[in-house]
Amino acid sequence: MRSRFAVSSDDFDLAKVDPATTPGINSKTKARQFVTSTGPELREDQTRLYAGRKQSILLVLQGMDGCGKDGVVKHVIDLFYPTSVRVTAFKAPTDEEKQHDFLWRFRPHLPARGNIAVFNRSWYEDVGIAKVHNLVGPEVVEERYGQINAFEAEAAAAGIIVLKCFLHVSYEEQGRRLVDRLTDPSKRWKFDEADLVERACWADYMSAYSTAIRRCNLNPWYVVPADHKWYRDWVIAQLLTETLADLHLEYPERPDLDIEALIKRIN
Amino acid sequence: MRSRFAVSSDDFDLAKVDPATTPGINSKTKARQFVTSTGPELREDQTRLYAGRKQSILLVLQGMDGCGKDGVVKHVIDLFYPTSVRVTAFKAPTDEEKQHDFLWRFRPHLPARGNIAVFNRSWYEDVGIAKVHNLVGPEVVEERYGQINAFEAEAAAAGIIVLKCFLHVSYEEQGRRLVDRLTDPSKRWKFDEADLVERACWADYMSAYSTAIRRCNLNPWYVVPADHKWYRDWVIAQLLTETLADLHLEYPERPDLDIEALIKRIN
Repeated sequence: MRSRFAVSSDDFDLAKVDPATTPGINSKTKARQFVTSTGPELREDQTRLYAGRKQSILLVLQGMDGCGKDGVVKHVIDLFYPTSVRVTAFKAPTDEEKQHDFLWRFRPHLPARGNIAVFNRSWYEDVGIAKVHNLVGPEVVEERYGQINAFEAEAAAAGIIVLKCFLHVSYEEQGRRLVDRLTDPSKRWKFDEADLVERACWADYMSAYSTAIRRCNLNPWYVVPADHKWYRDWVIAQLLTETLADLHLEYPERPDLDIEALIKRIN
Repeated sequence: MRSRFAVSSDDFDLAKVDPATTPGINSKTKARQFVTSTGPELREDQTRLYAGRKQSILLVLQGMDGCGKDGVVKHVIDLFYPTSVRVTAFKAPTDEEKQHDFLWRFRPHLPARGNIAVFNRSWYEDVGIAKVHNLVGPEVVEERYGQINAFEAEAAAAGIIVLKCFLHVSYEEQGRRLVDRLTDPSKRWKFDEADLVERACWADYMSAYSTAIRRCNLNPWYVVPADHKWYRDWVIAQLLTETLADLHLEYPERPDLDIEALIKRIN
């Protein structure tokens, strides 16, 4: 699964990935059942990860508005216990944050050992929207690719497993979802007219993200076809279960404990 | 439900509350079914709360080791979406935190408007363990009751609904749970020998918490009989559903949107 979606080519281009494709599974029902069925395994591994306090997981969710970042949180991250998972959504940087280097504001939210963090948007906005709207010059964008690679290498060295997922929706599907936000009164609060400005720059975004994915692929990117919500969730659930399974997590031994003596003390 | 467990008497004493009682329901199966059944309502109200961005919820969980604070998070808070709920566990204050007043470290974790925060332990440690072990003098503890009341009033004025739950377990049930942590290899990592030191001070803790509950009851305390995990969860699930229902939350109107024109722009 991971090798199927991990970006490996030097000429990667989002334009060549069909957002509506569903390789590996055709049934929405089976996909949803699979996602639910991973719950016990995910929670078990989450508890072992937390008990061991050695590594941590950082799931980065990127993509255009309406690509389903919140949906992944609601349907996949929801499978974890709330105890050691934390979701952070990053909006436009504040005035204070702008006084620092672009990576500064993310550091305090990196997951502590044993924990799972989910970033709804990330430093890829700083080579995404920042590039599309020329918020910084091209030489600054160029520098940032290197700074991002160094930052992610530092995180990896600290035991943080960085999973970067680009949720890839089509222009047409985004349109349907934005219309849905307008027509459904229970979703209308989500609608932000600014999203239409970004929608008008679609091709520029695809180009900027394609470049960012190519240039910052030391921790591989996973590009997830996301026009079908059930497929998107199915892929992410597998990425998480496979990643956690690979760690071969065990509960820590406690040779420090004299169990019999302690039980006597309790009773 | 809230009136049943809200502390209202001026001579409140934990010693008079039976931790094994289960008023209102006798069936574990029915209690668990009820908790699960509240999920859709809780998530709907959570989304409305978030959409409205006016109020927020702070659930404070206090109690002796093994009273089930983590259990409540895993079985009740888990019913919410992870999007706008955040759990923070407070351990002993760090050296830096000790350089500030005792309430300082909690402020950054208060819930933003529209969000739900769960505090696993809180400033009640500062009139609990701090009092039992004489970490500060009695005159400081005395001052802290007033400071806590002012702090909670400030939070309430800022739109934070503070729900304080004391999970009340018996000495015997705590003993069983601690023994279980030692005998079950998948729970052994949780065992901390320091918990036995606190266990030895049981009566002092009951007295300190009884006083704190009496003195800091402007936002009423809910004392939850917690020897039965299913009962504890049943009570908390009801406290949350009732509290949210009382807010009569609605999705915000969006008179600012010219829906027809926007749909045309999208298509």
